[in-house]
Amino acid sequence: MFHNPPTMTTTPALALRADQRPSFDDLRDAAARISGLAHVTPVLRSASLDALAGCELYFKCENFQRVGAFKFRGAANAVFSLSEEQAARGVVTQSSGNHGAAVALACALRGINCTVVVPGAAARIKRAAIARHGARIVDCDVAQSARNEATARVLAETGGELVHPYNDGRVIAGQGTAALELLHQVDRRGVARDSGPILDVVMAPLSGGGLMSGTAIAAHGVHPGIRVIAAEPEGARDGHDSLVSGTRITGRVANTISDGLRAELGPLTFDILRDHVERVLLVSDAETVAAMRLVYERLKILIEPSCAVPLAAVLRNRTLFAGQRVGIILSGGNVDLDTLPSLFSLAPEPFEWP
Amino acid sequence: MFHNPPTMTTTPALALRADQRPSFDDLRDAAARISGLAHVTPVLRSASLDALAGCELYFKCENFQRVGAFKFRGAANAVFSLSEEQAARGVVTQSSGNHGAAVALACALRGINCTVVVPGAAARIKRAAIARHGARIVDCDVAQSARNEATARVLAETGGELVHPYNDGRVIAGQGTAALELLHQVDRRGVARDSGPILDVVMAPLSGGGLMSGTAIAAHGVHPGIRVIAAEPEGARDGHDSLVSGTRITGRVANTISDGLRAELGPLTFDILRDHVERVLLVSDAETVAAMRLVYERLKILIEPSCAVPLAAVLRNRTLFAGQRVGIILSGGNVDLDTLPSLFSLAPEPFEWP
Repeated sequence: MFHNPPTMTTTPALALRADQRPSFDDLRDAAARISGLAHVTPVLRSASLDALAGCELYFKCENFQRVGAFKFRGAANAVFSLSEEQAARGVVTQSSGNHGAAVALACALRGINCTVVVPGAAARIKRAAIARHGARIVDCDVAQSARNEATARVLAETGGELVHPYNDGRVIAGQGTAALELLHQVDRRGVARDSGPILDVVMAPLSGGGLMSGTAIAAHGVHPGIRVIAAEPEGARDGHDSLVSGTRITGRVANTISDGLRAELGPLTFDILRDHVERVLLVSDAETVAAMRLVYERLKILIEPSCAVPLAAVLRNRTLFAGQRVGIILSGGNVDLDTLPSLFSLAPEPFEWP
Repeated sequence: MFHNPPTMTTTPALALRADQRPSFDDLRDAAARISGLAHVTPVLRSASLDALAGCELYFKCENFQRVGAFKFRGAANAVFSLSEEQAARGVVTQSSGNHGAAVALACALRGINCTVVVPGAAARIKRAAIARHGARIVDCDVAQSARNEATARVLAETGGELVHPYNDGRVIAGQGTAALELLHQVDRRGVARDSGPILDVVMAPLSGGGLMSGTAIAAHGVHPGIRVIAAEPEGARDGHDSLVSGTRITGRVANTISDGLRAELGPLTFDILRDHVERVLLVSDAETVAAMRLVYERLKILIEPSCAVPLAAVLRNRTLFAGQRVGIILSGGNVDLDTLPSLFSLAPEPFEWP
């Protein structure tokens, strides 16, 4: 496979294809490509959260990323990987959430057309985030078949390039730059360690597997000894069950307040995660909300519920992490403030982890 | 007056007294003294908030300060200004809020005794924050007379040093280090400007006047042309009315959801503010909550309602700030999450400023 030289930050002649599994070099290319487009987000720590968890926590704050989520990294890498000919035909995607806004912004930055297929149930606020960046919105019914038909129709009409939210090597490579950046930032802080890795563990929430796949490739590219652990809501445990059973499970209906974690693994992400992930930890929605409250109170930052799932998993499984250096990708901050009261009611404090 | 040499960061022989008006040099001494004790907090910006406000906003994030508020700066400066003899007798203060926790932490760091007089109505969470740092809590009735009697009794018993929440030169000098740091940080970013000041305006919320006084001394010490503007809730407008009338108003009962802004000016802060503050802008509680929501949504950080008052004032008075570089001290992040639903109900979005 041909890799872009490190200095090439725009459209390469032979970029990673959507259906290709990205290598660690692809992640480094992605980091170079989106440099100056994506924000370098801060890493936060909290002595009181460390004491509570019994380990050292390093929070990578992708809630401060553009469009408020890590999704911009993958979208920017995919959109800026396109050849001029591909770019001229525009980009198509299907999303009611952060990915739609991220692709819309990336296309606006490159100055190309963007169409986002949005299922009818999408919240007004999320539609507004997509429309703000000048993307065309195509409405469709919420059923998966209706979404796929609408997307296929737009692709046929426009000849545009599909950028899938997670089952796309270019997107996965972009998402992996968050963990890559985290590891560099922790390393630059001069964290004292023996010959082992910079971080002992890297964690992210698991949904369709784009972030988790990129995170895993980044971590094991930096040091094969880093433990890669995913976290998933009990009500959307298809990822856990897929990896435990060795068969990709599809077609389940998720039931969780973590609305960013309801997707199922794709063939590409399933394939990557099987090779990299030590285990998938499950948490209840109440544990997720309690962890989210802790982040609000101790770190003074806004995160969305999906984002708190890894911290909840650490607090539920303290012995797995005792004394270790644990990096957590805080995936996004796009919480609808009006939903906070009902979310908080799920975990009246003080919450006691088992 | 004798000033500490810049390299002296602990107990000077002749420090600023509590009843002295601090000079700009005292602020620089304070910055040196609390360096390594207080966090250097980040300055955040938001393109969408700038567009909404019609000016360039620079948010100094004291919600990320130790104990979650700027109060730690003043407390640390006062506590670390004490002579060994004073320190040996311990520190006494009166507070149900951030100042109590800040003084408790500062005393813990210096390893000296601390007593906080806490009126009975103080929330459990605030009492816990004071107790966490090992301070002795003395309960008293909520009436001001009862608080003063309890404080006087503890002072007589212990021979300790009173550190007033705001009417204290050492505290004012410490609070001023936030604005000093903000101006340095903006300067280091290389903001393009003509021969004028780094920032055109510096703003903070107005309560007892400690933060506002320190902010004013810092701003005018750096550049006399910086406009110093205070913001206050309409339901606690004693500061506005005092400065407009030229007479310090006391004894009013405040009625505002900004629970950090209910204090009245002291003689020392009134005296300082008269010389420095261009004007005091008033805002409604609904405007405050709407501004707080904007900060949550756009900056993805947690702030308490009091903290949003200056942004609300900018949005209500856009013409005063049009095109200018405006620094805002975000004073703290200690919001009780359980109160958010009732706060949000005051400003259902979308909120339209006049």
